[in-house]
Amino acid sequence: MPAAFAPYSKLRKRAREIAWVSGAGEMLTWDLETYMPPKALGFRAEQLAHLGGYTHRLFTARKVGDWLSACEQGGFAPDSDEAANLREWRRLYDRATRLPARLVEEFERTRAHAREAWKEARQQSDFQLFKPHLEKLVALSRRKADCWGFAESPYDALAEGYEPGIRASQLRTLFAELRPAIAAVLGPALERSAATPPDLLHGNYPLAAQQAFNQRVAEAIGFDFTAGRIDTTTHPFCATLGPGDCRLTTRYNEHDFTRSLYGILHEAGHGLYEQGLPAEHYGTPLGTAASLGVHESQSRLWENHVGRSPAFWQHWHPVACEHFPELKRFTPAQLAAVANRVSPSFIRTEADQLTYHLHIFLRFDLELRLMEGQLPVADVPAYWNEEFEKLLGLKVTRDADGCLQDIHWSIGDFGYFPTYTLGSLNAAQLVHRAAADYPALESELARAQYGTLLSWLREKVHRLGQRYRPQELIQHATGEPTRAAYYLDYVRRLLVAG
Amino acid sequence: MPAAFAPYSKLRKRAREIAWVSGAGEMLTWDLETYMPPKALGFRAEQLAHLGGYTHRLFTARKVGDWLSACEQGGFAPDSDEAANLREWRRLYDRATRLPARLVEEFERTRAHAREAWKEARQQSDFQLFKPHLEKLVALSRRKADCWGFAESPYDALAEGYEPGIRASQLRTLFAELRPAIAAVLGPALERSAATPPDLLHGNYPLAAQQAFNQRVAEAIGFDFTAGRIDTTTHPFCATLGPGDCRLTTRYNEHDFTRSLYGILHEAGHGLYEQGLPAEHYGTPLGTAASLGVHESQSRLWENHVGRSPAFWQHWHPVACEHFPELKRFTPAQLAAVANRVSPSFIRTEADQLTYHLHIFLRFDLELRLMEGQLPVADVPAYWNEEFEKLLGLKVTRDADGCLQDIHWSIGDFGYFPTYTLGSLNAAQLVHRAAADYPALESELARAQYGTLLSWLREKVHRLGQRYRPQELIQHATGEPTRAAYYLDYVRRLLVAG
Repeated sequence: MPAAFAPYSKLRKRAREIAWVSGAGEMLTWDLETYMPPKALGFRAEQLAHLGGYTHRLFTARKVGDWLSACEQGGFAPDSDEAANLREWRRLYDRATRLPARLVEEFERTRAHAREAWKEARQQSDFQLFKPHLEKLVALSRRKADCWGFAESPYDALAEGYEPGIRASQLRTLFAELRPAIAAVLGPALERSAATPPDLLHGNYPLAAQQAFNQRVAEAIGFDFTAGRIDTTTHPFCATLGPGDCRLTTRYNEHDFTRSLYGILHEAGHGLYEQGLPAEHYGTPLGTAASLGVHESQSRLWENHVGRSPAFWQHWHPVACEHFPELKRFTPAQLAAVANRVSPSFIRTEADQLTYHLHIFLRFDLELRLMEGQLPVADVPAYWNEEFEKLLGLKVTRDADGCLQDIHWSIGDFGYFPTYTLGSLNAAQLVHRAAADYPALESELARAQYGTLLSWLREKVHRLGQRYRPQELIQHATGEPTRAAYYLDYVRRLLVAG
Repeated sequence: MPAAFAPYSKLRKRAREIAWVSGAGEMLTWDLETYMPPKALGFRAEQLAHLGGYTHRLFTARKVGDWLSACEQGGFAPDSDEAANLREWRRLYDRATRLPARLVEEFERTRAHAREAWKEARQQSDFQLFKPHLEKLVALSRRKADCWGFAESPYDALAEGYEPGIRASQLRTLFAELRPAIAAVLGPALERSAATPPDLLHGNYPLAAQQAFNQRVAEAIGFDFTAGRIDTTTHPFCATLGPGDCRLTTRYNEHDFTRSLYGILHEAGHGLYEQGLPAEHYGTPLGTAASLGVHESQSRLWENHVGRSPAFWQHWHPVACEHFPELKRFTPAQLAAVANRVSPSFIRTEADQLTYHLHIFLRFDLELRLMEGQLPVADVPAYWNEEFEKLLGLKVTRDADGCLQDIHWSIGDFGYFPTYTLGSLNAAQLVHRAAADYPALESELARAQYGTLLSWLREKVHRLGQRYRPQELIQHATGEPTRAAYYLDYVRRLLVAG
């Protein structure tokens, strides 16, 4: 193979162009969520649509397909950088070009309307307003799945967009093991949580003090503020604008500093992954995170395994008291107890780390039925409410607190939710393996020395980008594919035995 | 002419695309100056170079030339919207197509790095750190001037980019009248200023209080904060990211609130012009400011003619006291006296409104020599220091206070400085005319009623965009081309007789 195989160089050049333009789109989106004045919205929306269409055309051009075919004949070694990039570019190119332009346009138009209808429906808590839009989106998504193709279920073709290689059948098996095991942990965990009032820490935590403390914690776990920053938004996120430019956002509640703190630990976990991707491969699959389920493993690892551990508060309680003097009247154990309180609730994004998965099981089951044509859209609220009560023991009385709560369906994202649960399982499995590799890990973490854990993650996950497919990556890092056992051990230890 | 003449529609569509992409560039540049983490610089510089090259290619495509030629045969009425847009598009197209794309990209990349080098050089007050970058930028600028062509001086070809139609020879004539007239005002103005100690207001003005007061003043003169905002930078600017999105920036000195106040009045003056441009023409010449010399007339009008008038402080002194209680020990007349203190100093951006122009004369002379090849870059500091002493009677001992003080050269802006002086002359001429049209104007301004003045400017300047060329616009608005007389009357009245 010559040092610079021309079609491959052209693909890399095209990828760089796309990275520049889509990075501009990320910048504009970040600004839209943080600083943009309201009257800028109309132009901004058109601008983002234009840039999105432009990068789509750059990637789906016929000559990109020609370069890919030429490279596939090029004889790159199977374990080479080039082979990994080509594998992913091919997958993405085929997915992007298998959808007829008319279907893409219809989908975009439908979801633009659906999103507005969903906002209105949620505000009025009236599913009927959203129903016709959801019907169209389900039908169009099934057509997309048909275009992409699938071996077992149309759900698989959709989930592939978020978690390459995942199958509904695998998720069914995993969730079938998780569900009764979580139910078994729930009883004792609730009993323990009863000792901690939900508003124990309720107080007055000035915004500037929260920002200073959060920044200190994020720096301690390794987030590089010379290559990133934190701003304020309604919906927290982590956005990468370019190599060396990772933006975290959070929101603040002046009565509860733990919301923004755990928000930042979560987003900084995503950010550490982004900052650990190899900059020299930026804009190619090798410089891109493996999947949403792997990404979410990083955010949940730092938020939960590190940030909610009793050892975390042993170390950070005195530091927190410097910023929030009223915390002096609590013990580190009390702070940890609040952080690990378990209590079934209606809203997924506010759920504790145990009952969270019950929310996911419901959505997975429901989406699967929708995509396989076993559940008419009209029956969604009734089915939701019935299953929700079985899973969480709570009676949904308002669709706004039930099947209308999430934005995902309104923007046509079906097959996305299980990546959150995969994230939890992967996080526990990775931590288990890191501790096996470094027996001193736990005592280091207790001293707030996070370097060994971060280095291990850098080596086993971050620096690899998409060199392996997600399940191969987990296999390489931990010796097994994603399993439920490590997560279950973790919650039993933390929430019952600990 | 048919309602939608196809080649003209294509030009409008292309202008819209360019506005989307160049607006993304504006966004990235604004972020680079305000919030960007340092490690993002390398990618950002490449990205801006790419987007600059892309909009250049979009505009310089052969078919744009074909559409223009077709439109020029299209028989649009000379006073139509279309004719005005076509006149400016043709001028810009000819300028742009004369530059090779590679030169444009090299220039963009060079100046992104030069700006960082300049920051470092200024901080260390070491011209040598900036010298190689300045040499490259001067050489590239002379190449640009050669590509564009010129009748008298390469300087003219560069100045055309900021002030269409201006010639170095005209500026020489104008400045030859101004220089002795300013010298004649300077003596008595200095004598009067001697009664006001320079640090009279020196105190403690918290940043948040300055921000609140500045926002109140900016709102009062008409700046729309639902279509704009204020952020913090080292070098204040006003940037338009799209219609309804005008960003002002300033810097703060906790001991001197007048710096940020006059900074904001100045930038808000620019912002009022941008917000007054017709949004329906956004991205075309009719939706674009006429020139920098006209733009600067708006900023200086609000900063100086409004903000430094004794009447301004009669009204705003009590309001300022709400934000800065320590101002209670001063009279409005004392505040006005500080605002109009004349005193030669090293830094252009901190100069009073009289000696300011002496700084411009030096830069004009120096750039003219650089562009005409009469001064090597290595000699810039020595030449600067010698001429500065002749003009302002001060000995420069640090390059940071001399030839390294301005950002302009670091971003490749040569031929730009005289537009500041043109701005002062235009401002005085416009105010003179508005007062002639509305005899009640002065008493309205004294009551902080700025609506009549703003409406007059909206009608005579803002809403016209580039319907007329800059000197035609001034002629239409005031009945004469730009003259020195109104500015000289103004400073004599304010600084000597007042």
